[in-house]
Amino acid sequence: MGVTASAPAKVILFGEHFVVYGEPAIVLAIDKRVYAKAEKRVDKILHLNSANLALEATIENGVFTTEKGNPKEAKLRFEPVKTAVAKVLAKHGAAVGIDLEISSEVPVGAGLGSSAAVIASTTAAVSTLLNVNISREDIFRITFEAEKIVHGTPSGVDPAIATFGGTLLFQMDTGFRPLDIKSEISLVIGNTGVERSTRVQVEKVRAVKEKYPQVVEPMLRSAREIVLRAVEALKKDDLETVGELMNINHSLLRGVGVSDDSLEWLINAATKAGALGAKLTGAGGGGCMIALSRKDKLEQVTEAIQRAGGNPFIARKTDEGVRIEQS
Amino acid sequence: MGVTASAPAKVILFGEHFVVYGEPAIVLAIDKRVYAKAEKRVDKILHLNSANLALEATIENGVFTTEKGNPKEAKLRFEPVKTAVAKVLAKHGAAVGIDLEISSEVPVGAGLGSSAAVIASTTAAVSTLLNVNISREDIFRITFEAEKIVHGTPSGVDPAIATFGGTLLFQMDTGFRPLDIKSEISLVIGNTGVERSTRVQVEKVRAVKEKYPQVVEPMLRSAREIVLRAVEALKKDDLETVGELMNINHSLLRGVGVSDDSLEWLINAATKAGALGAKLTGAGGGGCMIALSRKDKLEQVTEAIQRAGGNPFIARKTDEGVRIEQS
Repeated sequence: MGVTASAPAKVILFGEHFVVYGEPAIVLAIDKRVYAKAEKRVDKILHLNSANLALEATIENGVFTTEKGNPKEAKLRFEPVKTAVAKVLAKHGAAVGIDLEISSEVPVGAGLGSSAAVIASTTAAVSTLLNVNISREDIFRITFEAEKIVHGTPSGVDPAIATFGGTLLFQMDTGFRPLDIKSEISLVIGNTGVERSTRVQVEKVRAVKEKYPQVVEPMLRSAREIVLRAVEALKKDDLETVGELMNINHSLLRGVGVSDDSLEWLINAATKAGALGAKLTGAGGGGCMIALSRKDKLEQVTEAIQRAGGNPFIARKTDEGVRIEQS
Repeated sequence: MGVTASAPAKVILFGEHFVVYGEPAIVLAIDKRVYAKAEKRVDKILHLNSANLALEATIENGVFTTEKGNPKEAKLRFEPVKTAVAKVLAKHGAAVGIDLEISSEVPVGAGLGSSAAVIASTTAAVSTLLNVNISREDIFRITFEAEKIVHGTPSGVDPAIATFGGTLLFQMDTGFRPLDIKSEISLVIGNTGVERSTRVQVEKVRAVKEKYPQVVEPMLRSAREIVLRAVEALKKDDLETVGELMNINHSLLRGVGVSDDSLEWLINAATKAGALGAKLTGAGGGGCMIALSRKDKLEQVTEAIQRAGGNPFIARKTDEGVRIEQS
């Protein structure tokens, strides 16, 4: 039998990169989810299997063994999952063997928060399986702690979105706060398929800012105003304004050097096909772009992104955070 | 026989549109010229012929007659030329019939200053033909006055570049001042072939600025800093920095809504082909883009723009203003 839990992926709607310099960002849970299925084993082994990553590993008495795929990658991907399971087992009070099957509806490592969603869904599945009483806040904390292992000092946005769903306003010094956005938001997410490193992209912006401080600092102020204006527009369901602000936000991101031609092709294609607005989302330099679109244009925009060489899928804002699917 | 004079076309290297709000701009004379050949006639008729525009007209006793092409367009194009010739004839003191042949090495009406170059070269050709003693400053003034007829209140940048050549720093409230730029600048100019109206584009920026003042005002400050930094870089022959600043400048122009997909395709293609920097030049929304390129990449960049559907040509900075070619 076992227990299946799920948690949503996320997109950054506004403010990536500028957030590093204290400006606000808007982050959105989307209706594409990561699923974790947990089953008890007769032994004490933790067995981890990720279909999307084609990785498999076992952990027995603290010894990590890669059963399938690149050992270094397996360790990197599974380490936070192992940590989360260990925290639940500590609450349970006894060692139990567990089979864990992970699958994701979004591309992994593309800035869509799949990593946090894996941990949140795993934590929920394992705690339910073992009848460990655990709150949403506990899931958030465990996910946050486990994410730190791989991401150093993450902002906590991905764990928060994966756990609570919805829309968050995030700022480095004040943390995140939920935004009450009633409007439906339909996005086409286009994956360029180009791998990028968040660290390299963040460094790129730092270098531009250091070389041209007087040029870049006003752009940060502009980015802040975009977010404030976007919050207003989202609350009023004024999607046209949201789209226009996405276009300006993308231009600023392009200005600090984090767009690339793979993203530009997809963004131009989406804009030409009638998207209300389009921008890169996340680190840039490849990865994903998002296009905001009215319902009657979703198909056109999706096709245009596909024709331009991207891998598109439609995603909608969801208020559903981590949840039990089956137990 | 007759006299042939020529004057250079121009590109805006930095600062278009933001100049409307008082920020500085850098304008460059290029080695593509407009030629005016003036010959005396036995009658008192002024006969005007533009090969590029396929327009021909005569003016006899103040009566304008279109001989070839659209009468409205002929009137619009030839009105300032007529005014300039009249000013030279007034200095000459007697009515003389003149045949005037105009040809241009740059596309007309694409924001490359061909209109001012036509007037400056005409003024020089006709005054030399009639032995009217005329200074460079006179040519500038006549060109400026004649430009006002069609362009309302032009900035005076185009007449200044057509007359004096070189590089100018322009600002609305202080006018233009020559920049002493020693470095060679090689550009690939890509014509999208998409017609645009400067007025419509200027209005577009005004609308964005009115809707999002707090977002756009910092972008104006950023644009100003770009120009100041670019002047430094040009003086130091630091073309890499000039290119980077062009990219940021284009991003800001894209942000205020004056780029379009015809420009974006060409700019992306040029960037991918190894240009140091690329941006729209002039009004945007079609018209022309420019790519700064090292000599060894000029051909590649040109080909890339061509393949992306543009009409490219190579142009270099010139210090040569209006001049007599043959007399």
